[in-house]
Amino acid sequence: MISADFPLIEEVNGHLLQMKGKLFRPMLLFLANRAAQVEDPRVVRFAGVVELTHLATLVHDDSVDHSTLRRGLPTINALFSHQISVIMGDYLYSRAMIELVGVDDLESMRIMARVTNEMTVGEMRQLSAYDALQFTEEEYGFLIRAKTATLFSAACELGALRAPPRRRAALRDFGHALGMAFQITDDLLDYTEGEAVTGKPSGLDLKEHKVTLPLIAALPRLAAADRREVEVLFAEQEPGDERVARVIALVDRAGGLAYARDRAVEWASRAEEALEELPPSQARDTLRDAVVYSMERRR
Amino acid sequence: MISADFPLIEEVNGHLLQMKGKLFRPMLLFLANRAAQVEDPRVVRFAGVVELTHLATLVHDDSVDHSTLRRGLPTINALFSHQISVIMGDYLYSRAMIELVGVDDLESMRIMARVTNEMTVGEMRQLSAYDALQFTEEEYGFLIRAKTATLFSAACELGALRAPPRRRAALRDFGHALGMAFQITDDLLDYTEGEAVTGKPSGLDLKEHKVTLPLIAALPRLAAADRREVEVLFAEQEPGDERVARVIALVDRAGGLAYARDRAVEWASRAEEALEELPPSQARDTLRDAVVYSMERRR
Repeated sequence: MISADFPLIEEVNGHLLQMKGKLFRPMLLFLANRAAQVEDPRVVRFAGVVELTHLATLVHDDSVDHSTLRRGLPTINALFSHQISVIMGDYLYSRAMIELVGVDDLESMRIMARVTNEMTVGEMRQLSAYDALQFTEEEYGFLIRAKTATLFSAACELGALRAPPRRRAALRDFGHALGMAFQITDDLLDYTEGEAVTGKPSGLDLKEHKVTLPLIAALPRLAAADRREVEVLFAEQEPGDERVARVIALVDRAGGLAYARDRAVEWASRAEEALEELPPSQARDTLRDAVVYSMERRR
Repeated sequence: MISADFPLIEEVNGHLLQMKGKLFRPMLLFLANRAAQVEDPRVVRFAGVVELTHLATLVHDDSVDHSTLRRGLPTINALFSHQISVIMGDYLYSRAMIELVGVDDLESMRIMARVTNEMTVGEMRQLSAYDALQFTEEEYGFLIRAKTATLFSAACELGALRAPPRRRAALRDFGHALGMAFQITDDLLDYTEGEAVTGKPSGLDLKEHKVTLPLIAALPRLAAADRREVEVLFAEQEPGDERVARVIALVDRAGGLAYARDRAVEWASRAEEALEELPPSQARDTLRDAVVYSMERRR
């Protein structure tokens, strides 16, 4: 779909294809379409739009975060340059827009315009979190919604664009709840699993002073000395592995991991409930499996 | 138009408004609409879309180029951070898309999708120019078309979207030719004028090893010793002011500035010719003035 507009683009794109993910969002879109039981040949194109948009945000996120690894492979900014990742992200967005325009459907454009806007507002929020340790569960919720749930929700809704309103709404809600569960689990895996599972070193979020749900939940329950340990980590430019491991252990002891797991389970249940609105089908069963997969993810 | 989705966005946006330009593209769009002599209330929104898109590319360009000054004010990357400029650019693009979707018109979306795609492909080309001194006039033409002429052309065409095909095509061609003249002149001013006129230090392109038309035209006409001087400049990490001044002088002596000026005049004539297709009107006269302005620009 991303064709050879230019050799460098092809080269960068070749790398992106190598590190290509699970195509989870396109898969959701196709399944949502099946589960909605409507014929809609446009879904192939919609799937491309959704994946291109996802790739564009990944490329820009890695550039903003100076990340060096993604899915176990070097990021575009690490392998090429920071400049190339800014422009490549823009290019991927523009390709998504071209594909979308090709579908000739205003409703899908409205959905995608809202999604990309929400995603960038979410990114801005993240950048403007001055005192990381003041980050609240509500702010975290807003962030992961913008970062993940919005696009999951859009993927499912685009699959059901021709379905009756109730089915379409059910699939939109399903995508949103699934995205929330998926992202909370992702943030949890950063605490519990190493590079072999996530493609990123474990405790990376803490190392980069990113506050996610386990820490937010643990903080108010920490004894003064433990809280001090967390503050020291957040004051250090480059916290060492030992310090990170100690903070992970104390977040766990304070129930932070369990709390996050509970919230993920709640969202997973809401996702499953949303599916009740749909007629029984194999696609619906597979969407239910996708919920389980999101919760147990191993890379 | 860019409302308060979030405090940091407002803050960055406040700065963008301070450094706001001449609103040249929206003005072209309005004039094109008048000159086409068609009623179209959507032009206000189209003008917003075009300016937002322009701002988004400026913010990303400055970030990619590590520029510190724009229109005499610090750039977003200089004043805030590199991260914020990547996300702010994405945000501005997404706002443009939201405004565009609000117009409910597929044709305008097709035009803007093509424009943003062309612009990013142009940026990629610029980044992949490995041996700067091998840059050809043809490649330069492609680059300034992608960088400037495409959006000028789109602005004029969007203004004339409801006009009969010949008028619409004339205004599209006018915008393209004007954009080419405008950008060649811009690159020329970098050679001939200082910060007071351009808002940027003079000879900045050479300092940053950017090859534009004056140098491309001069290179084949340079004596061996002079060419060597250019090569030294391009081999230096940070060429000094004296070296830059010497290269400017020898580009001038070799006729590089005159050559670029001639090409700009050619494009300006083509822009004026395109206007012949339109009925006489005050707006048409003002568009003709815009051509003169583009050629004599003093900030």
